[in-house]
Amino acid sequence: MELTLSALAENLGLTLRGDDAVIRGLNTLEAAGDDEVSFLANPRYADLLATTRAAAVIVDEAHADRAPRAALVSASPYLDFARAVQLFAKPQGCLSGISELAYVHPEARLGEGCTVYPFAFIGARAVLGKGAQVFPGAYVGEDCRLGEACILYPNCTLMAATVLGDRCIVHAGAVLGSDGFGFAPTPVGLQKIPQIGIVRVGDDVEVGANTAVDRAVLQATAIGSGTKIDNLVQIGHNVEMGANCLIVSQVGISGSTKVGDRVTMAGQVGVAGHLTIGDGATLGPKSGVPKDVPAGATMGGIPAVDKSTYMRTLALMPSFPDMARRLKKLEKELAALTARLDQGGPDA
Amino acid sequence: MELTLSALAENLGLTLRGDDAVIRGLNTLEAAGDDEVSFLANPRYADLLATTRAAAVIVDEAHADRAPRAALVSASPYLDFARAVQLFAKPQGCLSGISELAYVHPEARLGEGCTVYPFAFIGARAVLGKGAQVFPGAYVGEDCRLGEACILYPNCTLMAATVLGDRCIVHAGAVLGSDGFGFAPTPVGLQKIPQIGIVRVGDDVEVGANTAVDRAVLQATAIGSGTKIDNLVQIGHNVEMGANCLIVSQVGISGSTKVGDRVTMAGQVGVAGHLTIGDGATLGPKSGVPKDVPAGATMGGIPAVDKSTYMRTLALMPSFPDMARRLKKLEKELAALTARLDQGGPDA
Amino acid sequence: MELTLSALAENLGLTLRGDDAVIRGLNTLEAAGDDEVSFLANPRYADLLATTRAAAVIVDEAHADRAPRAALVSASPYLDFARAVQLFAKPQGCLSGISELAYVHPEARLGEGCTVYPFAFIGARAVLGKGAQVFPGAYVGEDCRLGEACILYPNCTLMAATVLGDRCIVHAGAVLGSDGFGFAPTPVGLQKIPQIGIVRVGDDVEVGANTAVDRAVLQATAIGSGTKIDNLVQIGHNVEMGANCLIVSQVGISGSTKVGDRVTMAGQVGVAGHLTIGDGATLGPKSGVPKDVPAGATMGGIPAVDKSTYMRTLALMPSFPDMARRLKKLEKELAALTARLDQGGPDA
Repeated sequence: MELTLSALAENLGLTLRGDDAVIRGLNTLEAAGDDEVSFLANPRYADLLATTRAAAVIVDEAHADRAPRAALVSASPYLDFARAVQLFAKPQGCLSGISELAYVHPEARLGEGCTVYPFAFIGARAVLGKGAQVFPGAYVGEDCRLGEACILYPNCTLMAATVLGDRCIVHAGAVLGSDGFGFAPTPVGLQKIPQIGIVRVGDDVEVGANTAVDRAVLQATAIGSGTKIDNLVQIGHNVEMGANCLIVSQVGISGSTKVGDRVTMAGQVGVAGHLTIGDGATLGPKSGVPKDVPAGATMGGIPAVDKSTYMRTLALMPSFPDMARRLKKLEKELAALTARLDQGGPDA
Repeated sequence: MELTLSALAENLGLTLRGDDAVIRGLNTLEAAGDDEVSFLANPRYADLLATTRAAAVIVDEAHADRAPRAALVSASPYLDFARAVQLFAKPQGCLSGISELAYVHPEARLGEGCTVYPFAFIGARAVLGKGAQVFPGAYVGEDCRLGEACILYPNCTLMAATVLGDRCIVHAGAVLGSDGFGFAPTPVGLQKIPQIGIVRVGDDVEVGANTAVDRAVLQATAIGSGTKIDNLVQIGHNVEMGANCLIVSQVGISGSTKVGDRVTMAGQVGVAGHLTIGDGATLGPKSGVPKDVPAGATMGGIPAVDKSTYMRTLALMPSFPDMARRLKKLEKELAALTARLDQGGPDA
Repeated sequence: MELTLSALAENLGLTLRGDDAVIRGLNTLEAAGDDEVSFLANPRYADLLATTRAAAVIVDEAHADRAPRAALVSASPYLDFARAVQLFAKPQGCLSGISELAYVHPEARLGEGCTVYPFAFIGARAVLGKGAQVFPGAYVGEDCRLGEACILYPNCTLMAATVLGDRCIVHAGAVLGSDGFGFAPTPVGLQKIPQIGIVRVGDDVEVGANTAVDRAVLQATAIGSGTKIDNLVQIGHNVEMGANCLIVSQVGISGSTKVGDRVTMAGQVGVAGHLTIGDGATLGPKSGVPKDVPAGATMGGIPAVDKSTYMRTLALMPSFPDMARRLKKLEKELAALTARLDQGGPDA
């Protein structure tokens, strides 16, 4: 794809300063060629402006005159870069329409403009909104309902009766609607608690590669609109998650926990079951959360405490052996001093 | 499905107190409608009995008279609820029989009543017991042997020669029999140790979505009967796990570790290789286990120690910065006191 | 397969001491039968030589005379055992050639001797080197380029334009080229940063079962030759990893981090984004790495510190409650001593 800088500026509503040119892609400041556009979002990298070969740089007003060839002046350079990338992004896939090598149950209903690849499976009574794309190996169980323009990447699985809103993206290998982990101990072993609930997902949700979201024991495991879930995340049965959350890779959330809106969980966080995580809370990487988290809190550690306590504790951790040594020394010194006093006063 | 309360009571061997009614499902105390049955397992929620609309509540003798409409009196309300759910549970899937869109190797043998969905693959000499269900995208490698009534959910993979007992459930995306992670360092890089063992699984085992169980380097990685493994768990090569274990999501068990019977590992636990975890041990969430664990022990922390030590350590962790401050203060005070004594006694 | 010990010795370049015999496999010292070969790599297990039934043991010079029947004398018993296993290893799979039940795009190009199983999908313009094996359910997106002799196990996914070198192995369920986790906050929610880069993998790389490697936002996420990645690992967008690394199960590496050559990361390690991990570094199990790691360092803990500090800290952790108690006791004693001095000297 080719575009002039002036056309790009117009498309994004930005001001072009400098010479117009034909561009063919986007790249980092360091790697951009002279037919590519780059961006400066973090002032820390401003020195790279001096050496970049980019045809133009999307940049804020303060740095615009430092762009060597042309500047696309933006109030939100990162966001406008994202919009520019969107123009050049090429969607995944190489086929369209319903493949004869797919299986579509006669009782399934597909909206207009759907693409179903070879070896995709659409079960009985499943309903797919218009423009859905179902890649090879994707499984849509019976009674699933998908909104418009959803994308199911290869080998993902939607067990029976899973509900997706509009514009959801399920990445490769993700599983929605697997049985929750519920067993009751009995004298003769563990009895399975059948899981008869579903998974219900809002609009504009992404579910990462090889992530698992379990169906509820009763009712629904719910993911709110706009929430983005990274790869290899575990969402237990009956979790209820709000809107616009960011759940980073390898997080695990145990059953029945309620997560508010705009919650961020960094990588490898673990959250116990039956908790409430308040709106806007942030859980730091690898933290382990054993109890409720108030709205807006920033937490870290195992068990997670407020971030400032955690950071101070962390900073001191390597001094632990030294503290142990000093404690022992103090004990000896105090004992010596006490003995000295006992044995006849300060001059003994 | 519809059922009368009296029929349900008879089926479960419970006593019905109150009016009979037709029920159509099960639900929580809060969400149940007047054609649904609920349950009270945890006395903490007993106050919900006052407001539930449920047609009947499965409840112990002590709370039976507080059920507003009818009580199904049970010695084990949770267990009997599980059995009731079983009656209403609808199995996954919408086809039966061997699909013409599946691939079944001519040398494979399938028992009576098997279902093989489109795009499932059954390799050479694989043997499936009667009633097996193989969902779309499931792969059964050559020489696999499955007992009766196993369920292989979509896109799971059983590499060659994997053995399952009766009534096993392999959830979507799970992989059994992938190569163990074995490499020998050489001057020219890492040489692969070929893994020529298998995975052998007992009866009534569940393997969670996107879980991986590696084949042994020699002999077998083994999972005992009745053991339940959650999603995204890693079981290394030559692990030998006993019966009726509960392995929660995102646990990792390194190679050659022996796990006893009835062991519980909470979410995100990591266990080093070549260890022995005794019967009935419990490993707390996120714990890291570097050495053997005796039978019956309850452990927590990284590295895992006995739970009471761990809990006391945890409780004190946030006071670490305060301890460091107090230690410094003590050092100063003791030095001052010593100086005072050195400089002429208490009155100096 | 059958082989004489003398043929095995010749094949591996080892010296046979003792009687020749026909062997049919390999096994551990404890489990080997009299038609199997075993090995002793760790002197700790030397006592097992007295009781093994193995026809021969691959063993170093120092232990050769303790092998009860025959010894295959080796300078590197473990490595030669690996080579012996290779002779007996049976490759996965039961078909060859291009299945009529596979989908191969007319614009894809396959080298000589490729095997494509039923229900595998090869997209437009994908190029597979000679001898590739593509198992059922594997997805090769458009514009992928694979070197010679690559193996794609069942249900793995290579999104568009993924590049693999020669002799790579992608285990079941692994995903390469899923979108990186990039979103920009806006007043109306999270805006997706389209990911338009690729994943580029060197030669002789293994990617474990259900592992996810994200494509770059721009340019490439890169894995160097000879690197081995275990199961359920997360590699973020724009990570650049060197050669001959060992990345153990459930590790997570955040975006844009640079990992050197010969780096080892043990199980469940988490590495933050935009860091540099130097050549030959070792990160201990479950460690959390928030900043750069110098070449050759051995680190542990959350946050990771050098191993010796970490080990000393770990050893002291269980004494934390005791330290707190002793600190309190010291404070009291010092106060008492001070009071005693204030109230009239040592004899008061």
